[in-house]
Amino acid sequence: MAVYTDVTDEALFAFLGQYDLGAVLSFKGIAEGVENSNFLLHCQSGYFILTLYEKRVNPADLPFFIGLMEHLAARSLSCPLPVKRRDGRSLGTLAGRPAAIVTFLDGVSVRKPDARHCGETGRALAQMHLAGHDFGLTRPNRLSLKHWPKLFAASRAHADEVSPGLAREIAAELAFLQRHWPSDLPQGVIHADLFPDNVFFIGEKLSGLIDFYFACNDSLAYDLAICLNAWCFEPDGAYNVTKGRAMLQGYQSLRPLDAQERRALPVLARGAALRFLLTRLYDWLNVPPGALVRPKNPLEYLGKLRFHQSIDQSGEYGLES
Amino acid sequence: MAVYTDVTDEALFAFLGQYDLGAVLSFKGIAEGVENSNFLLHCQSGYFILTLYEKRVNPADLPFFIGLMEHLAARSLSCPLPVKRRDGRSLGTLAGRPAAIVTFLDGVSVRKPDARHCGETGRALAQMHLAGHDFGLTRPNRLSLKHWPKLFAASRAHADEVSPGLAREIAAELAFLQRHWPSDLPQGVIHADLFPDNVFFIGEKLSGLIDFYFACNDSLAYDLAICLNAWCFEPDGAYNVTKGRAMLQGYQSLRPLDAQERRALPVLARGAALRFLLTRLYDWLNVPPGALVRPKNPLEYLGKLRFHQSIDQSGEYGLES
Repeated sequence: MAVYTDVTDEALFAFLGQYDLGAVLSFKGIAEGVENSNFLLHCQSGYFILTLYEKRVNPADLPFFIGLMEHLAARSLSCPLPVKRRDGRSLGTLAGRPAAIVTFLDGVSVRKPDARHCGETGRALAQMHLAGHDFGLTRPNRLSLKHWPKLFAASRAHADEVSPGLAREIAAELAFLQRHWPSDLPQGVIHADLFPDNVFFIGEKLSGLIDFYFACNDSLAYDLAICLNAWCFEPDGAYNVTKGRAMLQGYQSLRPLDAQERRALPVLARGAALRFLLTRLYDWLNVPPGALVRPKNPLEYLGKLRFHQSIDQSGEYGLES
Repeated sequence: MAVYTDVTDEALFAFLGQYDLGAVLSFKGIAEGVENSNFLLHCQSGYFILTLYEKRVNPADLPFFIGLMEHLAARSLSCPLPVKRRDGRSLGTLAGRPAAIVTFLDGVSVRKPDARHCGETGRALAQMHLAGHDFGLTRPNRLSLKHWPKLFAASRAHADEVSPGLAREIAAELAFLQRHWPSDLPQGVIHADLFPDNVFFIGEKLSGLIDFYFACNDSLAYDLAICLNAWCFEPDGAYNVTKGRAMLQGYQSLRPLDAQERRALPVLARGAALRFLLTRLYDWLNVPPGALVRPKNPLEYLGKLRFHQSIDQSGEYGLES
């Protein structure tokens, strides 16, 4: 969470001149989103979020992300809706960066999700998968199986400094996943980063999903495996099967998994754990000087990976037969 | 600007249970205020700012700060109004820190103030000085002349690393100010930190003052000298007499300076420059490891100090005779 870019009044007013939002009443940097700079914008016409896309977002991907939010919102998924400028476009430039304004979404992300939150999240994930079905644009997953070896190579030499034996353990897992990764599961648009930070609730009820900047095309069940990792483990590292069951039930209430997806769940969960282990390991070893964001501990995901390695069949996740 | 303290949902909901604000709709850390953690809070009853007072604020001073905002708001100065809990108190505890909720104040702080902004600010400062006249609590200025030697002693040994000869220059100025500081000017409650960050505008019109956490009792004209330093210099270090004149006229439209105050203006401006030079020098030399806030350059205030040393009479600031 950070505000990276300073925006001058003049630049802001010039940018907002392209919209019909009324006078600016307030403008504050907010501590939300790791990848981009976000500002809360209060105009006469309401509250909005202004996002400046920083280096880690490829500008060529922005039409996919913006278009996806428009597509999903039009299909009643609660997510930020990009606001169009007078010229009909949703993307502009501010302070030298691509920038967009989206509607302000009420809700609070939960730090300690309970089973009900997991159930609601599973259901919303399935809703997103169904709503994304007829989205016209595609974006490859740049953090998929075939990218993991390169990602690993960038950290391998220093991996054992984080945990002795880690390089060998990752190499073995990578070899396993390359042999066993399922290639013929149902595909579609996945969120790919639906952590508790990115799901808003008002009270017990889910109010919306945010941060679609990792969204891409991949196996739908892989997205669910990412969520099981992100939502259903306790702080002590234990898998909470009650939460897992709630999430799987919530998902299947809208989109039942097919037999192949059910069978693949343990290997998908291993892959999802390895993907976050690898990116966190890289970030851990490459903290830029003066960084405002403390990297997340990669070893949390090593623990999750080891848990999934011990799973014999999908029922152990709480998946009903 | 920073969010220092993490607030869990449970702690937040327990804290809000003491208020009558309705359900929480949104809660976001905002990048505002250097000293404290600030959150934007959207409840059914409206938008608010939740502040957690961090280490640099002395809890014993909070009744003064909170009481002052209540006092000033009751006298029509536009500033955040502390929200009372059901038990009638305005101060509570959250995440182990003193915490208060204030009303959300619309407006945007200007990065490059023009003469009109300076005039409005001068006028609002005078309004604050008049409205504070009958405030019942007092708080000594802990960054006044008598505290500067100790503050200087804490940086003296390393001052020349920032600029060669700096230690000698500060010592000479301190000796001058100790001989010439006026002791009998009109006193009252001063803001003591009314930088452009702390003044909100909607368009050209001032919408309110914020951040009263340096407020204290001292010479009223010293507060005006702080503002001349903070608002009326150009980025290249030049004093802009048009802005100075606008600020002084704005101030005097509500509270004309008396003859002593007018005469004292150059020495007050030197003192105000030295005060910020000393605190910035200390912060520059003592950046805590892992700090999220980059310290401000102390040499900006050395330049201002040298300008004031060259002033023969108050008319050079734009003060009309």
